[in-house]
Amino acid sequence: MHDVIDSILSADARNLRPSPIRAFAALINDPAIISFAGGVPSPHTFPSDLLAEIAARVVRESKVTSLQYGATPGLPALRAAIAGVCSERGIATEAADVVVTTGSQQGLDLLARTLLDPGDVVLVELPTYIGAAASFYARRAELAGVEQDDDGIVPASLDAVATRLRAAGRRVRFLYTIPNFQNPSGRLMKQRRREEVLAIAARHDLMIVEDDPYGDLVFDEGCDTRPIAARDRDAIVVYLGSFSKVLAPGLRCGWVRAPRPLLKVVETAKEAADLCSGMLDQSIVEAFLSSGELPNQLARVRAYYRDRRTTLMDALERHLGGKAVWTKSAGGLFTFLTLLDGRDTAGLVRPAIDAGVAFIPGGPFFVDGSGRSTMRLTFAKEPDDRMQEGVGRLARVLFP
Amino acid sequence: MHDVIDSILSADARNLRPSPIRAFAALINDPAIISFAGGVPSPHTFPSDLLAEIAARVVRESKVTSLQYGATPGLPALRAAIAGVCSERGIATEAADVVVTTGSQQGLDLLARTLLDPGDVVLVELPTYIGAAASFYARRAELAGVEQDDDGIVPASLDAVATRLRAAGRRVRFLYTIPNFQNPSGRLMKQRRREEVLAIAARHDLMIVEDDPYGDLVFDEGCDTRPIAARDRDAIVVYLGSFSKVLAPGLRCGWVRAPRPLLKVVETAKEAADLCSGMLDQSIVEAFLSSGELPNQLARVRAYYRDRRTTLMDALERHLGGKAVWTKSAGGLFTFLTLLDGRDTAGLVRPAIDAGVAFIPGGPFFVDGSGRSTMRLTFAKEPDDRMQEGVGRLARVLFP
Repeated sequence: MHDVIDSILSADARNLRPSPIRAFAALINDPAIISFAGGVPSPHTFPSDLLAEIAARVVRESKVTSLQYGATPGLPALRAAIAGVCSERGIATEAADVVVTTGSQQGLDLLARTLLDPGDVVLVELPTYIGAAASFYARRAELAGVEQDDDGIVPASLDAVATRLRAAGRRVRFLYTIPNFQNPSGRLMKQRRREEVLAIAARHDLMIVEDDPYGDLVFDEGCDTRPIAARDRDAIVVYLGSFSKVLAPGLRCGWVRAPRPLLKVVETAKEAADLCSGMLDQSIVEAFLSSGELPNQLARVRAYYRDRRTTLMDALERHLGGKAVWTKSAGGLFTFLTLLDGRDTAGLVRPAIDAGVAFIPGGPFFVDGSGRSTMRLTFAKEPDDRMQEGVGRLARVLFP
Repeated sequence: MHDVIDSILSADARNLRPSPIRAFAALINDPAIISFAGGVPSPHTFPSDLLAEIAARVVRESKVTSLQYGATPGLPALRAAIAGVCSERGIATEAADVVVTTGSQQGLDLLARTLLDPGDVVLVELPTYIGAAASFYARRAELAGVEQDDDGIVPASLDAVATRLRAAGRRVRFLYTIPNFQNPSGRLMKQRRREEVLAIAARHDLMIVEDDPYGDLVFDEGCDTRPIAARDRDAIVVYLGSFSKVLAPGLRCGWVRAPRPLLKVVETAKEAADLCSGMLDQSIVEAFLSSGELPNQLARVRAYYRDRRTTLMDALERHLGGKAVWTKSAGGLFTFLTLLDGRDTAGLVRPAIDAGVAFIPGGPFFVDGSGRSTMRLTFAKEPDDRMQEGVGRLARVLFP
């Protein structure tokens, strides 16, 4: 088997790209290392007492639903609740517009299967989320980068890249974007930019896949997180959401909101993929939402991360001001830092770990090979004192 | 969007086939209809009290695992426990040989993605499981049928079909088989047949994907359910299992056991598909297994279905003896009936529902268009008195 593995794989399988980030994150298990390298929410934010109570209740009282196979598009009451969440965000939505997925990662994957043929092009932000890229590469798509600045996608870049690719005869399928507190950049796209991006996409006959796992993690006044989908008049935006960052990712509960003809195909693709997502997970999330606790939970989660964000920002200013620039994160889990001297951060990972601090080098988030002097830092993992100490260590490694 | 949907879909998406069975089963919600049409385990078999207690405990005590993202190949302790299950079935297995999946449906889908290119051929039993076929069609594979008799796959048919396809220059990737109490036929493949099937596959350089969701649901003495994988010396068998039928399908917990070079690719495909399966589900199943309750649970589930099986067999004999033949099911959830007069059962579905009884016509389970005078009946859904009454109704519809 070992020597023949390549000969038995599908062409798609030979193009699979394991996440350099996930593999890397697994290496950092030493508690002596202060880690800014994670990408996951803090377990301190999980409402575990209430979830424990709900879990026991839905198993006892609703086992014919919570423990049984369910409908492929999801638990009806949960689809309705998600439609309510979307509508509150400004996207008029009914239950029939939503399919529940095994985390929003599955939503990305189902869309990739549904929309992408080998050689198709997907436009992505520079930098972009690696998990989405993995789903697109798994379909042998090509990824073309679009520039971002602190206000989000640069409209002229989007227009130019789409124009160039179309002129070259390429089939450009959609733009993938995370407008709210993007992973990895932490940026919030300005509303004006969203409007321009939507207009450019419509002009180029491009769909938009809008991924919004972080929009609820907003810390500061004056942040306008209204989705691009809320402006969509031409049914060209597919909107993905998730409860992973506001409730608990282990429950693997996300959703796809799409125009119904496309959603129907996504549902059929999901039937082949896993028949249905976890019914206990869906039952728990539905019961949590109908308990009315979500607003309180959001307030707690925002307060938790807001303070940590501030601690990290202050420490960066103190230790790295003038030597680097970084996103003034107003939400989400990340900031993204660029060294002003242009040094490649990949070579600094090992010295940093040796000095007891970990970060994720930014290069892998850029599909065009740029971004080598960047790094992603999360404020979700470490307590304040360790973050302060960690930034000190980082500064000593970067500027000894 | 409606008018352009086909133009935006991938070629794979245009080849998706929604399950005729799942759509059909959803129609039968009238409790007045006695249903043999289901395909799901009975909620009476779900150990809900214990699962409720375990669910609350793993959420409270292990939230950093049960509510957090997890490793793509699964919870380490669960992988180890599954390796133990496989080893007990005669397949020497370590934790590293196993990837946990979102039900075994995801295992099928990941293998389809990993092994199949468009136009590849998969050999399947006549009849076969529709959900597996859906995953193969989603890759634009072609399915070629291999004959079964009451002892399982007919070796001469397998040999002839593989020979013919290879001679025609087709790339035949693997044989898909459910040797234990197959869905839909209810048949148990004889060990001698398994030996022959393995030898023929090896000779034709074919892999075998062995799906075993029902092997634990064994009712009668003398049933030898040892998997084909237990005989595998050449690492050509991939073995799929599931806790859906012995514990609860809503927990979506299955596994793939494969040669490690292939398993590594399956893991990468899963990373793109959903990052990880539900961690609460995995934590619950792991805690259930480590509680030592599985043997008691298996004894209860077997006893529950054994009695119902007997009731259905007796009723069939009483009402349809001499007019039809059916599998003398020694395990699983199904029997499969063939009308001796050769009538097409599809046309009888509506009259049966009008008479207050439902069955699944067998035709859709046959990839070659044969099997039109067959039907699948489950004994998992109805209590004894309703099954007896239901078979009476069925007999009156079939032979008025």
